[in-house]
Amino acid sequence: MDVYEKSLELHKKHRGKLAVTSKVEVKNMEDLSLAYTPGVAQPCREIVEDDNAIYTYTNKGNFVAVVTDGSAVLGLGNIGPKAAMPVMEGKAILFKEFADIDAFPICLDTQDTEEIIRTVKLLAPTFGGINLEDISAPRCFEIERRLIEECDIPVFHDDQHGTAIVVSAGIINALKLVKKGIAQASIVINGAGSAGISICKLLLQIGAKDVTLVDLKGALCPGETWMNEAQAAMANITNPNKQTGDLATIMKGKDVFIGVSAPNIVSAEMVRTMNSDAIVFAMANPVPEIMPDVAKEGGARIVATGRSDFANQINNVLVFPGIFRGALDARAAKITEAMKVAAAKAIASVVKDEELNEDYIIPNSFNKDVVTVVANAVKAEANK
Amino acid sequence: MDVYEKSLELHKKHRGKLAVTSKVEVKNMEDLSLAYTPGVAQPCREIVEDDNAIYTYTNKGNFVAVVTDGSAVLGLGNIGPKAAMPVMEGKAILFKEFADIDAFPICLDTQDTEEIIRTVKLLAPTFGGINLEDISAPRCFEIERRLIEECDIPVFHDDQHGTAIVVSAGIINALKLVKKGIAQASIVINGAGSAGISICKLLLQIGAKDVTLVDLKGALCPGETWMNEAQAAMANITNPNKQTGDLATIMKGKDVFIGVSAPNIVSAEMVRTMNSDAIVFAMANPVPEIMPDVAKEGGARIVATGRSDFANQINNVLVFPGIFRGALDARAAKITEAMKVAAAKAIASVVKDEELNEDYIIPNSFNKDVVTVVANAVKAEANK
Repeated sequence: MDVYEKSLELHKKHRGKLAVTSKVEVKNMEDLSLAYTPGVAQPCREIVEDDNAIYTYTNKGNFVAVVTDGSAVLGLGNIGPKAAMPVMEGKAILFKEFADIDAFPICLDTQDTEEIIRTVKLLAPTFGGINLEDISAPRCFEIERRLIEECDIPVFHDDQHGTAIVVSAGIINALKLVKKGIAQASIVINGAGSAGISICKLLLQIGAKDVTLVDLKGALCPGETWMNEAQAAMANITNPNKQTGDLATIMKGKDVFIGVSAPNIVSAEMVRTMNSDAIVFAMANPVPEIMPDVAKEGGARIVATGRSDFANQINNVLVFPGIFRGALDARAAKITEAMKVAAAKAIASVVKDEELNEDYIIPNSFNKDVVTVVANAVKAEANK
Repeated sequence: MDVYEKSLELHKKHRGKLAVTSKVEVKNMEDLSLAYTPGVAQPCREIVEDDNAIYTYTNKGNFVAVVTDGSAVLGLGNIGPKAAMPVMEGKAILFKEFADIDAFPICLDTQDTEEIIRTVKLLAPTFGGINLEDISAPRCFEIERRLIEECDIPVFHDDQHGTAIVVSAGIINALKLVKKGIAQASIVINGAGSAGISICKLLLQIGAKDVTLVDLKGALCPGETWMNEAQAAMANITNPNKQTGDLATIMKGKDVFIGVSAPNIVSAEMVRTMNSDAIVFAMANPVPEIMPDVAKEGGARIVATGRSDFANQINNVLVFPGIFRGALDARAAKITEAMKVAAAKAIASVVKDEELNEDYIIPNSFNKDVVTVVANAVKAEANK
């Protein structure tokens, strides 16, 4: 059986992956009178007196909604809210396993931006945080921006920022290994969708000065007419040499390639045109932009992918559990840019200088130190 | 410490009552590849092919949303969605304890009828059923009616129908004990809100012919001008002798009193005017319309209340776990009137004829036979 057949069997056997359970016993009338009526009236009254008591007397502070509209699920595209459910249950169990967070799938039967925003706001009383998942661009930008603005709990679109944070962590360590400063490194990002733009923004935050975004029609550059609004905004703050042209053109003489695009679109020859000690993050999944052995053949010194069967797996699971654990514990109202930077640096720090090498620039996905280190960094930032 | 202080301590100790947990292990990369990417793509694809596969590969079929707007919580009134949260978590753990259903609180930050309806519809992909809870009348009628009409999963307002079903079960057994047929019994219901009206409708369904509803301003009777729309509709199909007047007037010569109203509003003298072998269900909580000893003093033969410290506790927990267990297992699209009648008869049947007596007309709230018997009755009805 391949991984797909095995997965199907696992899902069928358990009828999905998620359950809701009780933290208290209800075995007799006394239990019932405390957990439910009449006793439960008292925690209600305390919350009427003070909204914040909801964090003391309910699980709100540990509930995270995993919200999707099913419009951009994995590589499957717009499969709708029902077909998205296995992914959202999967995300929820990762929250539990890695950070002891009680996450619950919310698969919405609408793809209307305003309706999604409104619905999430109406759901907010139950939850301590909102994880947006697999919502297509450009709607995901507006949805996240508005919800961050209008909600009093943290809202985080993992496909954008989770990816950006873990990529940034990997880039920090890769540059350390090749002894290049982030401010001196020239970086090309292929794929100017939500992930690519978010990676770009975070790299700029941590000090990158020379980043160029490339999409299907070429480099993002002021004056190009094919760009959408989000891309045009990025063109203004990136591409310092105002380069135009296709990916092969832009890759020439660059230090770092980051791909969040499509399988097999980068050749060994293209890597060969990059600077020495080239860093290649090829994260298209399951088939990367270039296979690690081919990239090495082209002269890449460090290669990372999204896959677990190669070295240096770039996996969001290193990010979202710790980010939310920290934000929930600090009861932060927002996940700020400073928190994201702190999270990236925290993940990078788990790989000690003496361990750092070409095949180990990022912690293993199951390294349980990561969640604590990230959570603490986020909490410290929140408490500033 | 009283029950309120103890309850507060319990809620604080566990930080609420509810958790979300995983049914599968995620301890290594292989687990991850099956529960999440890349394997999870396969159950997604199966659901794309056939909507119904969501019941096979996810927990949808066992998820119930406990939905409130916090407008009519316990006896606390309109305390809003946050303060309602302890009650909704409580309800959810009862679903788990009694019927192994994974229920999740949805506390909505709106009290607008249309917005509640729309939001619940948008949430429906995740859930196998919707339990409406503590939503005030008359909005609860419209919300439930529309959701039943417009959703393809069962929607059930427990405050109306849960109460109606368990009361009907008690009335069936009480009448059996006093050897009166339901078609011959004269019944007065005090409190013409959502619970009272729902009880009335179900009693009519199971064969009652002489039911009179009474509210603060007197008996519901065609021509009375103070009635709301729901009450006016009931007036047309009840009160066969077109009686007018206050509760004391209407109680005279009746066989059964059912109170879902206010504390201490019925006196021993009023019970004394009822027929012999009077049946008194005084369900105001925590202080009933009349205390059991006072009702007995007035000549009542059978007294039931909502309280666990007297005989014959009328408790919804005998209903909603089994109703939903049956509806979910049968994958019923709706909870029909026939299912409600079947549930009431099923609950009544748990008390065997040879056990039936004045202090035992309804099963104990913790009698675990009830959920199975009710679920089977609902399933049988669904499969008809």
